[in-house]
Amino acid sequence: MLSTMQDEPLSLATLLKYASTFQGDSTVSTWTGTGVRTMTYRELGAEAARLANALRGLGIGVGDRVATFMWNNNEHMVAYIAAPAMGAVLHALNIRLFPEQLVYVANHAEDQVVIVDGTLLPMFAQYLPNLKTVRHVIVANGDAAALEAPEGVRVHSYTELLAAQSDTYDYPVIDERSAAAMCYTSGTTGDPKGVVYSHRSNWLHAMQVISPNSMGFTEADTVLAIVPLFHANAWGLPYAALMSGANVLMPDRFLQPGPLLELMESEKPTFAAAVPTIWGGVLAGLEAKPQDISHLRTVVVGGSAVPPAMMQAFEQRHGVRILHAWGMTETSPLGSVAHPPSGVTGEEEWEYRFTQGRFPATVQARLVDDEGKVVPNDGESLGELEVRGPWITGSYYSPEGATIDPDKFDDGWLRTGDVGKITPNGYLTLVDRSKDVIKSGGEWISSVDLENAVMGHPSVAEAAVIGVPDEKWDERPLVAIVLKEGAEPGEGQATELRDFLSGKFAKWQLPERWTFIAEVPKTSVGKFDKKRLRAQFADGDLTVTTLS
Amino acid sequence: MLSTMQDEPLSLATLLKYASTFQGDSTVSTWTGTGVRTMTYRELGAEAARLANALRGLGIGVGDRVATFMWNNNEHMVAYIAAPAMGAVLHALNIRLFPEQLVYVANHAEDQVVIVDGTLLPMFAQYLPNLKTVRHVIVANGDAAALEAPEGVRVHSYTELLAAQSDTYDYPVIDERSAAAMCYTSGTTGDPKGVVYSHRSNWLHAMQVISPNSMGFTEADTVLAIVPLFHANAWGLPYAALMSGANVLMPDRFLQPGPLLELMESEKPTFAAAVPTIWGGVLAGLEAKPQDISHLRTVVVGGSAVPPAMMQAFEQRHGVRILHAWGMTETSPLGSVAHPPSGVTGEEEWEYRFTQGRFPATVQARLVDDEGKVVPNDGESLGELEVRGPWITGSYYSPEGATIDPDKFDDGWLRTGDVGKITPNGYLTLVDRSKDVIKSGGEWISSVDLENAVMGHPSVAEAAVIGVPDEKWDERPLVAIVLKEGAEPGEGQATELRDFLSGKFAKWQLPERWTFIAEVPKTSVGKFDKKRLRAQFADGDLTVTTLS
Repeated sequence: MLSTMQDEPLSLATLLKYASTFQGDSTVSTWTGTGVRTMTYRELGAEAARLANALRGLGIGVGDRVATFMWNNNEHMVAYIAAPAMGAVLHALNIRLFPEQLVYVANHAEDQVVIVDGTLLPMFAQYLPNLKTVRHVIVANGDAAALEAPEGVRVHSYTELLAAQSDTYDYPVIDERSAAAMCYTSGTTGDPKGVVYSHRSNWLHAMQVISPNSMGFTEADTVLAIVPLFHANAWGLPYAALMSGANVLMPDRFLQPGPLLELMESEKPTFAAAVPTIWGGVLAGLEAKPQDISHLRTVVVGGSAVPPAMMQAFEQRHGVRILHAWGMTETSPLGSVAHPPSGVTGEEEWEYRFTQGRFPATVQARLVDDEGKVVPNDGESLGELEVRGPWITGSYYSPEGATIDPDKFDDGWLRTGDVGKITPNGYLTLVDRSKDVIKSGGEWISSVDLENAVMGHPSVAEAAVIGVPDEKWDERPLVAIVLKEGAEPGEGQATELRDFLSGKFAKWQLPERWTFIAEVPKTSVGKFDKKRLRAQFADGDLTVTTLS
Repeated sequence: MLSTMQDEPLSLATLLKYASTFQGDSTVSTWTGTGVRTMTYRELGAEAARLANALRGLGIGVGDRVATFMWNNNEHMVAYIAAPAMGAVLHALNIRLFPEQLVYVANHAEDQVVIVDGTLLPMFAQYLPNLKTVRHVIVANGDAAALEAPEGVRVHSYTELLAAQSDTYDYPVIDERSAAAMCYTSGTTGDPKGVVYSHRSNWLHAMQVISPNSMGFTEADTVLAIVPLFHANAWGLPYAALMSGANVLMPDRFLQPGPLLELMESEKPTFAAAVPTIWGGVLAGLEAKPQDISHLRTVVVGGSAVPPAMMQAFEQRHGVRILHAWGMTETSPLGSVAHPPSGVTGEEEWEYRFTQGRFPATVQARLVDDEGKVVPNDGESLGELEVRGPWITGSYYSPEGATIDPDKFDDGWLRTGDVGKITPNGYLTLVDRSKDVIKSGGEWISSVDLENAVMGHPSVAEAAVIGVPDEKWDERPLVAIVLKEGAEPGEGQATELRDFLSGKFAKWQLPERWTFIAEVPKTSVGKFDKKRLRAQFADGDLTVTTLS
């Protein structure tokens, strides 16, 4: 039996129309270093139409890819909604990718047009000759004449191009499962992989973002979007802001703690979102020069685990609630959010808030062991996290049609590559990446737990743990330590650190193998690059001390 | 270009699984007159499976209609989710329909099974012989033996039937556009009309209900669902509660102000939803016997316009925020909700809160004039409200396949039959029903505005205004007055009332025609029945005084 409901597609064109009319007084503002330049959502609607008309004039139609190479600013927000509203596909390029990766993803996505910020032109100019499918470059916030165009590429000034356009556009009605935007993972293994979001997935995801069990922001909020628009679908912030009527505040290129604090002092955002590294810097900045940031009622932090001490410092010293969240490019990215259950207080509340959070109804989650068996959500059993739902990717993009890699997908579920446990009431705690967890004699040892514990020792600046082959146990942990200045490497230090860990871990989990290194190799987004560490070990580049 | 997102359907079976696991500690409770009987969502999950197994045992499959004839209670909540989860279609029968209408809707929907509350058996027994498609009656909360079964109908005890069943069920994966539930309008013209909600529409609608720009309740709330589950999709409360993990409190048959206040005193709900009549009674009860009800952080009121004085009395005297909302059976029912814009205070804030509210992104709205032209949302122009979206009906149910009546639908939009105005920032104010608005010389006069104004006169108990034919102006208002005891009808009274209105209305809007009646005819849900009033006028049953 069919329902009588209207078969109205979820469409980002409808979202744009809504935001630019019924939420037309809300604003998006960009920090200039000394103040903000602001446009209302009403003006954003007009500018989006001008951009859509301009893109159509350049030959862009439904399904064509429109790339951006931009900071978070007003023009980027306009592109974010205009491109999908006209049926094109927004591809926000990650300006921090390694050059060969940037070129790879732009070519793989077959980007036709790139909108580039003026301040990023010197970097972009190096890549442009290698971008095979790009026919037009639009320079925003800068001088188009500064870019030399290769053969077959036309360079336009954003301002001049849009000035000539109509501020209305007859947006097409398209299937809600059509592509709206795409984002590549900055995976540490192999080529970056593309995820293609749909109008449907972005709409549903925006509804979840504004739900009180996720970010819960409203028209009364001003959302400081520090997370780059080119990271993981911008955590859904642009579409959720347009849907809720929340004001958006964009930091542009001013991402250092000092300028961020000036921006906050001036604009008093109520909500902010960024990775832990940013907040660590802000916290240090606040210690150096106190400032009231209690206008921030909530700060969402994700991308990697938030150190508990940082959460407590923000709350206890600055009155700012840090909300821990988990997600991936592949999951749009929400994920779980660590609102504690009601009625829970004190230490127990903190324990819940330190988790990766609770799943909402639209994200199904399960844990699977080495043999592909689902393990119980008892808060203890470890397994690889698998997720499923309408804003979770079911494949990776391929111009030749997607193939579904069984390492990444399991019977319709996305294998996240994360190892964790889930409580009966749906709270996720991740303990490791599945490729990093150390499988010792049939038991799993979390490399992350060892790292966190050993980093608590006063002599340790950084620590990374990898699994290395072991004849008896299959695999055992190797701890790579970066010492603080003044501390001495060697067997004595290793013994001291192992003693420091005993009591915190079962005896069989304590590492025998230690190595002292100058720095932990990092990925482009600042995560520990354990692949490179493993390669250094395999190549014999690490001096290993083995304790008896 | 297709997205890579999973093609995961929005499914109430998934919602049931979520609620009964990750929100398993939340509860649904039913008032017994002296206390509550409670089940956790975990227990609800097991009971839903038992009911689904029982229904399957009775031959119910995907698409079959499962009716309820029940108060709001735990068993009704179980049926609300179990029937759609198994792919059947829940049809909550309105126990307050006139007998012939009740029989009509049950036969029209082809209900196969009816679950009936024991206390409603005497009423139900009268209808049962006329229900042509019903094969099974399940008696909950009462004695199945008390019901005499007609030929071909089997009567079961809910408790005994479920006791024998497994508490797991392998729910089918079905298309999200499949029917999940149906509800008939209690229209005052013609036969009731059926609206069929889908899994998709109910899921999306639940996401909207829990959004902070609608009801915004969370796992920390206890939601008192006074609105009957058989009214307008229960305002979406059951599915929104399961989605958010909010606790649900059910009043069963205890709907009088006294018992409702006892229930509130005992259970301290934080959120409640009901029509204005209920809240008027509660307010009067509170005046008679004071009680602290400030545990209610929000009360959603809809179904008909809330008197401003009631909203202010609740807030100023009892610390309870009344949230005005608009919707219809045809719109699932949300609709608009009157959260004022941020930053607005004092009188201006109240003006926003008295409106029917602001539309969310997923509900498109426009106003259309007599000639089918869209009028501007300028806060002044009047038009018939038309709405569109994935939880708005696009037709009425017909067993022979839906036909789309142009009086009800306009190029994919639902014609609501309501006349109103919309501000540029999306706030709706309804002034009349389109069939009640008086079209006088090309201008519209709101019958409701006249009624509200004249009811402010101390001699007037009730007033209803209808349009009657006029040679010169096409139509002019006729005011039907029910006087308070002691007041005298006649030309003097009519003149006095017209003088009372002058100053409040333009001169051309002041009514010449007046009639004094004993009572205003009402519909089954207590609304003014202007159809009957018009018939009385047409039949010459009203004595009309015409002022010069």
